Amino acid sequence: MAQNVYDDEQFFAAYGRLPRSVDGLDAAPEWAALRSMLPPMAGRRVVDLGCGYGWFCRWAADAGAASVLGIDVSERMLDRAVADTHDTRVSYVRADLDQLDLQQLDLETGAFDLVYSSLTLHYLADLDRLLTQIARSLTPGGRFIFSCEHPIFTAPSTPGFVEGPDGPVWPLDQYQVEGERITNWLADGVVKQHRTITTYFTALRRAGFDVTDLVEWRPTDDDLAVHPDWAAELDRPMFFLVGTVLR
Amino acid sequence: MAQNVYDDEQFFAAYGRLPRSVDGLDAAPEWAALRSMLPPMAGRRVVDLGCGYGWFCRWAADAGAASVLGIDVSERMLDRAVADTHDTRVSYVRADLDQLDLQQLDLETGAFDLVYSSLTLHYLADLDRLLTQIARSLTPGGRFIFSCEHPIFTAPSTPGFVEGPDGPVWPLDQYQVEGERITNWLADGVVKQHRTITTYFTALRRAGFDVTDLVEWRPTDDDLAVHPDWAAELDRPMFFLVGTVLR
Repeated sequence: MAQNVYDDEQFFAAYGRLPRSVDGLDAAPEWAALRSMLPPMAGRRVVDLGCGYGWFCRWAADAGAASVLGIDVSERMLDRAVADTHDTRVSYVRADLDQLDLQQLDLETGAFDLVYSSLTLHYLADLDRLLTQIARSLTPGGRFIFSCEHPIFTAPSTPGFVEGPDGPVWPLDQYQVEGERITNWLADGVVKQHRTITTYFTALRRAGFDVTDLVEWRPTDDDLAVHPDWAAELDRPMFFLVGTVLR
Repeated sequence: MAQNVYDDEQFFAAYGRLPRSVDGLDAAPEWAALRSMLPPMAGRRVVDLGCGYGWFCRWAADAGAASVLGIDVSERMLDRAVADTHDTRVSYVRADLDQLDLQQLDLETGAFDLVYSSLTLHYLADLDRLLTQIARSLTPGGRFIFSCEHPIFTAPSTPGFVEGPDGPVWPLDQYQVEGERITNWLADGVVKQHRTITTYFTALRRAGFDVTDLVEWRPTDDDLAVHPDWAAELDRPMFFLVGTVLR
């Protein structure tokens, strides 16, 4: 079972102050790149794994999706998602994605055309199980588009820049040692699962997906002019964005 | 034009003492993983970009390839490749892969079924040009299988482990800053080209390839029992192996 850190009071309060929590998708640096991988929403049956406050669910409905199902493990986040959503095409379900039975949830729609997931997979212990679930619930040619923390970002035993021979460096170690990493982001003891790019790619292929997009997000020069503090993103990628299509 | 460091006397002498130079493919740690991506050789028309001493060319011919063309920029390496090869199905051509015209070379065979390249692409300045050449000279469904130095390995401004908070770390910086890296491996002033995984993947897709395998090589526990010094490979990957098929 995945840790439900988003229902931790300290974490939830701090998360609620992040730009992406206050201002939604456009405040997330990687959103434009992820959006460019998405098919047109018109008429699609969409599911969002780890929907949080429901920003993407509402965006997809506004963009013409036929139905949008948001799934999250956090009761607090779903409470706000429900309160902020006024669209009968959007519904929410609370579930642990490590134990999800998507077939049970797609009975209403028959199947999904698009499964979306933003910055969620690196919390899950059983990637293969989830990918099998997704592949089974997608229509042929359906898309699975997701972002997660980049393996370079999750790997280190102590993730934080240190002084190197020519300036700050990202202290990479244990890249090939997959499994739990305990970090102190927004709250102490946040559990993440480190996986290599090989593992993500190979698991996707095994589950029946062709990988069509694979983007290590980086800021543009325009981004850096507005957000000079994003320069650290040139040294090591934080976001890993992947587009796939079911074979 | 790519640097021809293999014809540098000091580099050539040192390279000639590496296990893979003395004992061939089986002395290369990543060979077994790369070999597992290869199609059966029987009857195939094969080209090896950066063939060096011709170890792979001779292996492919022994495994039943119809023809094998080895291409390298280094006169010294090709001299030894020719001297070591006694098989009329294997031929060698000297060419700079940044300026190669593969169509000119495949006139005899019509087209190739497999393009192979081992630890060569990270020396080349113009990846897009080469991929276009490869795509044009392959038969439909043809394969391009290659290894190169992993982007994590090529990125740092000073590539070498340093002492971190909990032990040695790989000092990652400039990952998103692509271009030349000057290193002192076997000789001073070796020029390599750093590219991100995104760039390799996107360039392959753009040139018409589906990516079927993407492996960040790591030693197995058995490998580590025999070669305890390979433990550094658990901290950061050195070899990036990619399997593709022409759409």
